[in-house]
Amino acid sequence: MTTSSPFVLLSLNEAYTLSRDILAQHGMNDRHADAVARSVVAGQRDECHSHGMYRLLVCVKGLKSGRVSGDAVPEIFDVSPAITRVDAHAGFSQVAFEAASGHLVRKAKEVGIAALAINNCFHFSALWQEVEALAEQGVAAMAMTPSHSCVAPAGGKRPLFGTNPFAFGWPRPGDFPFVFDFATSMVARGEIELAARKQEQIPLGWAIDDEGQPTTDPANGLRGAMLTFGSYKGSALSAMIELLAGPLIGDLMSFESLALDDGASITPHHGELILAFSPERLGSDRGDAGSNFERAEMLFDAIVDQGARLPSQRRFAARARTTREGVTLDRSLYDDILAL
Amino acid sequence: MTTSSPFVLLSLNEAYTLSRDILAQHGMNDRHADAVARSVVAGQRDECHSHGMYRLLVCVKGLKSGRVSGDAVPEIFDVSPAITRVDAHAGFSQVAFEAASGHLVRKAKEVGIAALAINNCFHFSALWQEVEALAEQGVAAMAMTPSHSCVAPAGGKRPLFGTNPFAFGWPRPGDFPFVFDFATSMVARGEIELAARKQEQIPLGWAIDDEGQPTTDPANGLRGAMLTFGSYKGSALSAMIELLAGPLIGDLMSFESLALDDGASITPHHGELILAFSPERLGSDRGDAGSNFERAEMLFDAIVDQGARLPSQRRFAARARTTREGVTLDRSLYDDILAL
Repeated sequence: MTTSSPFVLLSLNEAYTLSRDILAQHGMNDRHADAVARSVVAGQRDECHSHGMYRLLVCVKGLKSGRVSGDAVPEIFDVSPAITRVDAHAGFSQVAFEAASGHLVRKAKEVGIAALAINNCFHFSALWQEVEALAEQGVAAMAMTPSHSCVAPAGGKRPLFGTNPFAFGWPRPGDFPFVFDFATSMVARGEIELAARKQEQIPLGWAIDDEGQPTTDPANGLRGAMLTFGSYKGSALSAMIELLAGPLIGDLMSFESLALDDGASITPHHGELILAFSPERLGSDRGDAGSNFERAEMLFDAIVDQGARLPSQRRFAARARTTREGVTLDRSLYDDILAL
Repeated sequence: MTTSSPFVLLSLNEAYTLSRDILAQHGMNDRHADAVARSVVAGQRDECHSHGMYRLLVCVKGLKSGRVSGDAVPEIFDVSPAITRVDAHAGFSQVAFEAASGHLVRKAKEVGIAALAINNCFHFSALWQEVEALAEQGVAAMAMTPSHSCVAPAGGKRPLFGTNPFAFGWPRPGDFPFVFDFATSMVARGEIELAARKQEQIPLGWAIDDEGQPTTDPANGLRGAMLTFGSYKGSALSAMIELLAGPLIGDLMSFESLALDDGASITPHHGELILAFSPERLGSDRGDAGSNFERAEMLFDAIVDQGARLPSQRRFAARARTTREGVTLDRSLYDDILAL
């Protein structure tokens, strides 16, 4: 009698090929399947499992719904010397980002600061992927997007904001960039779902019940609303993200994209805002840009030297390990993916 | 026998004239005295007392030290279609901001996004004043600045970051702008000093002692380091502010400006970064910009309708009251100002 291992080990290449083929089978053309497969494998590689290959299930659900396009051609608008807009035409954001990120980097290097507005995209990817890619091209970057309403504003009672992630990257020549990426909700919704499954309590501060009262019962929290991190400060940031990656760029806020979803439970369909800053262009008329990069390293050294960690170090360590050893999937997830 | 009232009531005009005259007596020319007097009176008017007329004491200390210039002419550099730099030449930031903010607004409206780098300024003002002034001119704005090292990075033991404020404004035609402005430290240092004076404990999470251990003793916290709001998320934001308003624009981080201060305890001497975004320019090629402003109002309505408050409402209420009734100063502060 044989029992199969509860885990499946795949090399990064195997993980990519599997992901790409699954997406292609469900109607994505090569360009879309390649961009999305690289994104979910990057999540798996860095052991950000909520943005890893598990997302193939979500992608295929979107494709099957007929709402998500697997062959849209991103349409780029050269709005101004500092602004690029890309209409994803209802494709996933990764394809639009890859089409337009070169414009963003070029404009940031030319004029010092630039913005990329991605409109009309389906979005599920982790923002660190984008700010990290930009930082590797020598620009600092900030990225933000709304999601679907599930978080109450500070002092409120009902879901309004999304988990609204915010990410930032800073180039470190010769090293991994300084990168952070966090949800403005206190925790990911998945953590509350997990507590509910395990019948465990959640800490006060994660969620409120459907009457707006603090709760430690995850089921009550899921019926009510999640809370932002950092009380009214996180709530303010979350509102800023709604505004800048919503009305500013002519796209939907979390409550609007949730209404558009209308119960289909597809990943959010809206916009994303990415800003890029060139330390070389901005520093070049004041001192020398190289020394500005060196001074930034003094900040990182001062963080590490006192025993604190730079953000993303766990991801980078996982990346080094999985690049050597491959990624591990739960067999049940692997089977679910194969069954798609 | 008469006793004087513990408070002094001044009209906004009287408060302005008093402030301006005190600053002029200590060597500021008309332009500097006017800009700084309006700033401290605006703080007093909005009952942000830590940025109110109390700051006259700090300003005069700076002027007497010979470090702060009271007559520097801000020098504007037209770096690119999206970037303006202004060298404050060691004057207070308010004068440099007023000299250059028109350039920032014009560029944001022309190209959609623009940045203003203020370099070489002494800084003490509340950032809401700037983002609010920009929002009233129809642009969304983000402002940030380091300060002097007094906050430990998450997981660290020693002061590195400043209280590093972050502010944002969004224009609301016909209403006060949506404005928030918060320190990335958990609380203002003054709150810990106040607890020490009252011999009260501080909550866990405000500060650590000089060995990096959590403390509820304010004296230990003042010897150790303050903490950021929102744990590692607030710490990441604080690092971002150090980088963007420091090396990115060729100016000093909190630990560098503290070293420059060298025990003089003058307000920080470094830079500030302000970004401006034009909803009209960015929205004009996607739907109509007017409807984007209207959609933003739906977000604000949804916040207020569930019993939550928009940020800055207490300030706006104070402003309405003090504009009618005048501002109240503690007599001891009033006497200290007159004695300058």
